[in-house]
Amino acid sequence: MMSSPSCVLVTGAAGYVGTHVIHELICAGFKPVALDNRQEALEEAMKRVWSMSGVEVQYFYADLLNVGQIASIFQQVPISHVIHLAGLKAVRQSHGSPLSFYNVNVMGTCNLLEVMLAKGVNEIIFSSSSKVYGEPIYLPLDERHPSGNCTNPYGRTKHMVEQMISDITVANKHFKATILRYFNPCGAHPSGHLGEDRLEPPQNLMPLICQVALGNKDTLSIFGNDFDTPDGTASKAYTHIVDIAKGTVAAIQCPHGHAQYRVYNLGSSHVCSILEMVKIFEKLSGKKIPVEFCERKPGEIAMCSSDSSLAKQELGWEPMYDLQHMCEHMWRWMTCKTTDTTENNGANITS
Amino acid sequence: MMSSPSCVLVTGAAGYVGTHVIHELICAGFKPVALDNRQEALEEAMKRVWSMSGVEVQYFYADLLNVGQIASIFQQVPISHVIHLAGLKAVRQSHGSPLSFYNVNVMGTCNLLEVMLAKGVNEIIFSSSSKVYGEPIYLPLDERHPSGNCTNPYGRTKHMVEQMISDITVANKHFKATILRYFNPCGAHPSGHLGEDRLEPPQNLMPLICQVALGNKDTLSIFGNDFDTPDGTASKAYTHIVDIAKGTVAAIQCPHGHAQYRVYNLGSSHVCSILEMVKIFEKLSGKKIPVEFCERKPGEIAMCSSDSSLAKQELGWEPMYDLQHMCEHMWRWMTCKTTDTTENNGANITS
Repeated sequence: MMSSPSCVLVTGAAGYVGTHVIHELICAGFKPVALDNRQEALEEAMKRVWSMSGVEVQYFYADLLNVGQIASIFQQVPISHVIHLAGLKAVRQSHGSPLSFYNVNVMGTCNLLEVMLAKGVNEIIFSSSSKVYGEPIYLPLDERHPSGNCTNPYGRTKHMVEQMISDITVANKHFKATILRYFNPCGAHPSGHLGEDRLEPPQNLMPLICQVALGNKDTLSIFGNDFDTPDGTASKAYTHIVDIAKGTVAAIQCPHGHAQYRVYNLGSSHVCSILEMVKIFEKLSGKKIPVEFCERKPGEIAMCSSDSSLAKQELGWEPMYDLQHMCEHMWRWMTCKTTDTTENNGANITS
Repeated sequence: MMSSPSCVLVTGAAGYVGTHVIHELICAGFKPVALDNRQEALEEAMKRVWSMSGVEVQYFYADLLNVGQIASIFQQVPISHVIHLAGLKAVRQSHGSPLSFYNVNVMGTCNLLEVMLAKGVNEIIFSSSSKVYGEPIYLPLDERHPSGNCTNPYGRTKHMVEQMISDITVANKHFKATILRYFNPCGAHPSGHLGEDRLEPPQNLMPLICQVALGNKDTLSIFGNDFDTPDGTASKAYTHIVDIAKGTVAAIQCPHGHAQYRVYNLGSSHVCSILEMVKIFEKLSGKKIPVEFCERKPGEIAMCSSDSSLAKQELGWEPMYDLQHMCEHMWRWMTCKTTDTTENNGANITS
């Protein structure tokens, strides 16, 4: 009798990164299992993935703050790896409600790790962030750049989870972890069928620009035009969401060797200022995008670029998409009328 | 009708620091309420305090990992301040079971803060540690020394909690916090009636030396005799437990002014090497204390001294006791036969 193949549990599966990771896992021949705490979003996301890949994904509606719910999933499904994406991510909101971020991001991970250790699931891939580096001491940022001196509570939660996981790999010789520091994921799937959930109020630059281009918002607020950058607005490395998802899957595909604990930047070399991005979207939409300059927000960083050569060397990962692609795919997703998946309504994709 | 006076909730009340803080709170005219998750230890500790001070302290057996239990206490008692001492503290154990430390120290505090915010209790005093400084860049350590580059998971949990609390004071203009970085609390109450719980296996140097001097242990293991110190063994600032407790009470007594978030070292100037302390206890006990030198443990620091001038300046705190006192009082506590509080058995000191 063949044993059932082991699964890759994806937390935060209904989210922006989650849906793309699930799709890439399927494309790479893995058997993902989805977990999210937003029931409707999860169902909708799994319908999208089914519609795109023709594969029915087992999914669980569960909250990482509920240890019993997590343990129950590990009881039901043979899990070999966990890709841990769940968490709050609105950087600016984290200043106003830090405890929610510590609660969900740190306590949630603590619970997940507790269940993993109890059930002997010994491999985790964690979606960290370039925000762990704080104000850059040098650029581009590589993995040896000091981390932890974060400029916002969101970044601190990511840094704390990195430390927790690192300490566990030291204490437990069987536990393997890959930390992926994502650099500003953006764009959408080139097909136009997957992208950031439209129900969520946009927090990041690219969806906000799109909202103005679409006429859903009057003006784009730009916080700070006196940074030490060519046009005075903040400049960042943006990375296509599909590249982020492929890099995440690469972390499973590439064996650890002797390294129990690995850290990789997943960032493209495409650095772009806010005003440069506005111009690209003005061309794509054929509309003027009005901007207003406001005071800098706390913790904003002038410039951030990524050295991702370690991921290239060890995971064989390189971003495929350039900035023009990111913007085009995003615009396609925002304006696409063909993402309706109602034909799958009533289908029995339940856990 | 007079409203009932507000109380100071002390978490970890049955512990080494907790019992001394409760006693000093009573001496200073405060009304402490005790919380601990070790039922028997809590009852025993409150009996000791009653026996010493003649004051019956209301106490609650509760776990900080259970939000409902904490909320219930805040519902029953009018709390104005929280002195948060609860947590795992065995530094060396934290390497082997880091997740327990993150669980109890970080998640426990997260829960406590959640309840405090929900109930509008806006003042916390948190017992942090000199371990947040990690490997010193300069000595003596003052509060401006960089923190977070810790050499053990225990220190990281303390640092994380400091950051969480700091972020909350930024988000909530009514929330006030005092972080006290304790430097190696040791010794016992001069009366011989309070000290570190004898039921716990000793983890720290001074109780371990006493165990050998008392004949309960054959040898004192010293981890590393090749440190860059005069006699090769690690040298630290030790601080009398009563001074620690008085400094903690001073943080309540001294108004915040405009500073929502304050950080103070509570450390004496009494730096002493392991071998020097062994010699003091050989004199006190009149016995030879055999030592064996072992390999350094991970994360051990050669030298650590404290600059506590900020606490002197702003809290009016200065340590009263020197190293000889610390050792004498510790030895009195370890050898004292007069700490029996059975006369209070059956007394109705319940919550």
